[in-house]
Amino acid sequence: MSKLSARASKVPSSPIRKLVPLAMAAKAAGKTVYRINIGQPDIETPDSFWKAVHEYPSKVLAYGNARGLPGYVEELVKYYGKAGIDVRPDNIVVTTGGSEAIVFSMMAVCDPGDEIIVFEPFYPNYNGYAAMSGAILKPVTTDPKKGYHLPEMAEIESAISDRTRAILICSPNNPTGTVLTRGEIELIAKIAEKHDLYVISDEVYREFIYEGVHTSVLHLPELEGRAILLDSISKRFSACGGRIGCVVSKIPELIDTIWRMAQARLCPPTVEQVGAEAVLKNLPEKYFIEMKEEYRKRRDIAMEELGKIEGSFCKTPAGAFYIMVRLPVDSIEKFAEWMLTDFDLDGETTMIAPGPGFYASSDKGTDEARLAYVLREKDLRRAIHILGEGVKTYNKR
Amino acid sequence: MSKLSARASKVPSSPIRKLVPLAMAAKAAGKTVYRINIGQPDIETPDSFWKAVHEYPSKVLAYGNARGLPGYVEELVKYYGKAGIDVRPDNIVVTTGGSEAIVFSMMAVCDPGDEIIVFEPFYPNYNGYAAMSGAILKPVTTDPKKGYHLPEMAEIESAISDRTRAILICSPNNPTGTVLTRGEIELIAKIAEKHDLYVISDEVYREFIYEGVHTSVLHLPELEGRAILLDSISKRFSACGGRIGCVVSKIPELIDTIWRMAQARLCPPTVEQVGAEAVLKNLPEKYFIEMKEEYRKRRDIAMEELGKIEGSFCKTPAGAFYIMVRLPVDSIEKFAEWMLTDFDLDGETTMIAPGPGFYASSDKGTDEARLAYVLREKDLRRAIHILGEGVKTYNKR
Repeated sequence: MSKLSARASKVPSSPIRKLVPLAMAAKAAGKTVYRINIGQPDIETPDSFWKAVHEYPSKVLAYGNARGLPGYVEELVKYYGKAGIDVRPDNIVVTTGGSEAIVFSMMAVCDPGDEIIVFEPFYPNYNGYAAMSGAILKPVTTDPKKGYHLPEMAEIESAISDRTRAILICSPNNPTGTVLTRGEIELIAKIAEKHDLYVISDEVYREFIYEGVHTSVLHLPELEGRAILLDSISKRFSACGGRIGCVVSKIPELIDTIWRMAQARLCPPTVEQVGAEAVLKNLPEKYFIEMKEEYRKRRDIAMEELGKIEGSFCKTPAGAFYIMVRLPVDSIEKFAEWMLTDFDLDGETTMIAPGPGFYASSDKGTDEARLAYVLREKDLRRAIHILGEGVKTYNKR
Repeated sequence: MSKLSARASKVPSSPIRKLVPLAMAAKAAGKTVYRINIGQPDIETPDSFWKAVHEYPSKVLAYGNARGLPGYVEELVKYYGKAGIDVRPDNIVVTTGGSEAIVFSMMAVCDPGDEIIVFEPFYPNYNGYAAMSGAILKPVTTDPKKGYHLPEMAEIESAISDRTRAILICSPNNPTGTVLTRGEIELIAKIAEKHDLYVISDEVYREFIYEGVHTSVLHLPELEGRAILLDSISKRFSACGGRIGCVVSKIPELIDTIWRMAQARLCPPTVEQVGAEAVLKNLPEKYFIEMKEEYRKRRDIAMEELGKIEGSFCKTPAGAFYIMVRLPVDSIEKFAEWMLTDFDLDGETTMIAPGPGFYASSDKGTDEARLAYVLREKDLRRAIHILGEGVKTYNKR
């Protein structure tokens, strides 16, 4: 075989996927598997989305605008306005999911070998986008004991080199649920200014906030010349399969670059954009309030149940729908596998996402797991109860 | 502003887009503009697609499989079987449009600075994918007088260097309509074998053949270890806005790489995949026969009308729905602009895609234009008649 690129070997397999064959085997063997390992919400996509899709008016599924359907972009402008983010249509390029928004942004600011500061633990797919774009992620570790909030300025700066092009933040955070304070975003702004860096901000969980308020990078006037906001409807409107995201920035040259990349891939999916436009047009006032209430309830249930697992540790996260929890096991990866292969409680077990996949540093996260509270109350309680029983049995084996 | 990447400046604006503001101005001034500049078919997307979309059964638009919905992949296997391409589900990764299939393939075989041989004129978006992946396109020019068929082996080989990783072909061709013979694909296979290269084959116009038969890279057993087939439903099922394509290859390591890239971006659009699956499941026997008849008729009309333009030249293309034509003008780019800004025939004008955008060599295509015969008979005749009148008036001005 002719050799593949060096890049080919750098694109990682999703660490969350590794357990999938074991979960399938457990299921085939008759076990019920509670999946709190991935962030697939069980909430229904809004009716307005389905109504628009079901009534899609044209007979020809034509190319849309490379920047997004103009009607959808107009709705996005209004949506951001309500979030205190004052943008115009020419600040927005609609992308095929938040994924494309990230990879386009990395490509726009980094040449191969250039570096991006990330705070670990972080969303593992960032590794894939970095491998594809040739960017190198430089991790700065956050501390579970401090609720995974940012470290001191000096510690962040120590990771910056002359190849550093950007700082990547995610708030509310996947996998930790941490919500950065305005002070923390101001700190990032200060560092970016001092070292002439872009700030790439993944804000797909904007509405999932249970304490405090969300600060967007575009809330800070001093960041306007550096901020690249990444977004997606996947979680917000429970439309993960729609693949509709966007890049928002007030830097004309950056948006022009993203637009040129967008032209090459022609357009984002048309039918789902029409659905997303309808959702924004018809969003009930109480939509986010109800969604937030539901997830806050689930978070509190998860924290309550986790509190019963002796030796576990986590601070209550303020946002998203994840909890990064320390569990008293020797190896979280072995434990997560064992839960699927060797353990059950009355025929049921729980699937978690092991911590190391969320770290770039090789020795980190070995006793941490990410839990997604995407199940309804009864199932969520049961899933975490089983997890606790699993820990006990695992440590006695 | 912090500097953007060097890559950012290399991603070209679509050359076809440049004329769009002029067309909009012409339209705003009351002119009718016949758009034979882009390959947006006017054919209806099959009813089965819309039926499946309108009846999409779930209430939650969840993530699909990163490799594509299993049911759709099964249908693809059957579809390829009917085209004489014997593949299994594990040879396929569904992508977000043919665009993603190309950029993933380039990333899989090329590191930044590696080279890919392309035959010019070629589809301009290849430039964008190359810029994003860091691959460098090395053009080998084909001759209008030979119907844009491949040059001799030695001429192709002269473009190969020690950085060459692949040969990219497109048959039936966009923009020339040329269909490569089996002998030509065998020549490519011979060169690939001799120089240890991959063969990336864009076959999205597979069914659009009016003379002869289609030869796929996967029809040649000797190419199985080198062939990467790129595909899309955009033209085949007139579903350009659906963004459903795929990579097909019998090279396990290549498919594994594409799959890992696919994992990072999570999944292709779900609703459109369900539509595409329904189309393949319910495709009437006569679908491609009727489509081919319609386009063959249009091609013949276009050729007939082009024959009336004195000084124009083109051989009758055997496939796709494009004609690359030489027109007797000093600068095709100036002429194409002038058609929109200064010319009309009874309030109507024609929009074409200037040739230079389809060439990587800087001095080529200056008297060529690509025409897409995507209009119905009456409009197509009128569009080309206007083009001919435009040429006469332009040369007399």
